[in-house]
Amino acid sequence: MTYENRQYRLAARPVGLPKATDWEFTKEPARAPEDGEVLVAVEYLSLDPAMRGWMNEGKSYIAPVKIGEVMRAGGVGKVLESKAPGFSPGDAVYGSPGIQAFATLKAKDLTKIDAKLAPLPVYLNVLGMPGMTAYFGLLDIGEPKPGETVVVSGAAGAVGATVGQIAKIKGCRVIGIAGGSEKCRFLVEELGFDAALDYKAGDLKKGLKEACPNGIDVYFDNVGGDILDICLALIAPRARIIICGAISQYNNTTAIKGPANYLSLLVNRAKMQGMVVFDYADRYGLAAREMAGWMAEKKLKSREDIVEGLETFPETLLKLFSGENFGKLVLKV
Amino acid sequence: MTYENRQYRLAARPVGLPKATDWEFTKEPARAPEDGEVLVAVEYLSLDPAMRGWMNEGKSYIAPVKIGEVMRAGGVGKVLESKAPGFSPGDAVYGSPGIQAFATLKAKDLTKIDAKLAPLPVYLNVLGMPGMTAYFGLLDIGEPKPGETVVVSGAAGAVGATVGQIAKIKGCRVIGIAGGSEKCRFLVEELGFDAALDYKAGDLKKGLKEACPNGIDVYFDNVGGDILDICLALIAPRARIIICGAISQYNNTTAIKGPANYLSLLVNRAKMQGMVVFDYADRYGLAAREMAGWMAEKKLKSREDIVEGLETFPETLLKLFSGENFGKLVLKV
Repeated sequence: MTYENRQYRLAARPVGLPKATDWEFTKEPARAPEDGEVLVAVEYLSLDPAMRGWMNEGKSYIAPVKIGEVMRAGGVGKVLESKAPGFSPGDAVYGSPGIQAFATLKAKDLTKIDAKLAPLPVYLNVLGMPGMTAYFGLLDIGEPKPGETVVVSGAAGAVGATVGQIAKIKGCRVIGIAGGSEKCRFLVEELGFDAALDYKAGDLKKGLKEACPNGIDVYFDNVGGDILDICLALIAPRARIIICGAISQYNNTTAIKGPANYLSLLVNRAKMQGMVVFDYADRYGLAAREMAGWMAEKKLKSREDIVEGLETFPETLLKLFSGENFGKLVLKV
Repeated sequence: MTYENRQYRLAARPVGLPKATDWEFTKEPARAPEDGEVLVAVEYLSLDPAMRGWMNEGKSYIAPVKIGEVMRAGGVGKVLESKAPGFSPGDAVYGSPGIQAFATLKAKDLTKIDAKLAPLPVYLNVLGMPGMTAYFGLLDIGEPKPGETVVVSGAAGAVGATVGQIAKIKGCRVIGIAGGSEKCRFLVEELGFDAALDYKAGDLKKGLKEACPNGIDVYFDNVGGDILDICLALIAPRARIIICGAISQYNNTTAIKGPANYLSLLVNRAKMQGMVVFDYADRYGLAAREMAGWMAEKKLKSREDIVEGLETFPETLLKLFSGENFGKLVLKV
């Protein structure tokens, strides 16, 4: 049986925000699996800030997507045909299918997931890469201790919301930074943050200073730019800053703004450390089991912002950079 | 017996480089020691980049020097009169006498030093704060491993020269960055650095890239500014950057330049960490003994740039910021 595939390929390297003309929409028959491969019907695709980096040329932690290649993306779906032991039609799987409706993938690159334990989109959020990023970034690099003050930016995003909830589970005071009063209300009322500050309204530095009278012990940075600088000015002695992303800077056409207050690291003998979630792959299973437990106990919530239609991809992706998404941004194929 | 004291006091908080009018030169009789105190004839004073920070108002790791106060400075000298058990006239001591010829100090703030083991100025260099800063910053935060590439800026300065020599002792490849061909020659020929780059001549980024074909594993930063940014662009995976100082930025009258390449920390899962030497006070003794051993074995050299005359203080201090000093800058009273 042949399936007609639909795909978004990278047509040009974007300057600033990705434009419609940076993509090429193609249709072609899905390739039948060979030995060791599986054909997957993709159901949900993960849209992530990191995708912007993969579109650029140059050395990074992962090779750039080539011009003409299907855009890289994580996703979940169901097996349609299998030529690999251990995979049968109907199995739910997680992998990196790219922005397309069908994907022929090596079985060794797929992880079977349990659709009964949680809805499939949760495997793109708390039980997927954003959850792993939050878990290892906060716990391994941030090392939060009970009673400490943890600040997270992009707090209503996929990584940020999980960071804040895990910090609460660990007994910390948690302050979220997000855009808009609706997101801030959600963080406090639904997720149990101690406070949330709307960076689009009022004086963020003043608000943060009031919310953190003893300074910031752990700052989980998803945004970079001015917010990183404000947090640097307010860190406590021996603070830990996790550099997870810098969404405010990804579409810059001018030079990136470096953190002018970085000498606060010296005065406070603090550290600022980068992290890439792939380094923790051998511990994903453990983390997922612990987080599934917290979800079962209702201590950890997974919120997805699901947009329908593969064809909406170019515009849906932009929601990440305008701050429009509310929870993990997911494309339903 | 009364001694006429001479002193430099802070008259005004400098804007940019300290000017002559930022100081007040005073003369007054030295105060006789009371119980628990010692009167010291100051012989050598330590002039350090950190002094510039102490002249500013505002929160830091140590209180600012007050207007009218004798300028804070470390120094060594000999006891003249003692009202404290354990200290006798003629004892050599290290302490923080400030910029003056005589100082009446609490015995508990003084450390006796052995003038036979090393000349007194060495206690302001390798066996003093710069040596301790180099030792703990490099070994505790940098954690260099044999075969790794260590880069140090301000390499001909008091801290930098010791950092490079300790890194060589630990089996690393060591590249120094310094200003001028004479300093660079000294680093390679006298101190055994593998290479030294003159930041005032040629293309530093190109030179550093060639000198570090596998990237930089440890960067010990004394200068900040553009050199920090160049090093960030060249770090290896899991690199460690020690933020010890930022002499290029201390006299800025405009905003400090943040490191625009800080996202290299993310890509390389690297860390950047600040340090303040005082935190290691309980291990100074151990470090001094180990470094004295290396000096005896001729593996570690201490070079001082000694300028005579307390009255030269205002202009001698400026040598630090013009990069004129060659080795630890010391004022001979």
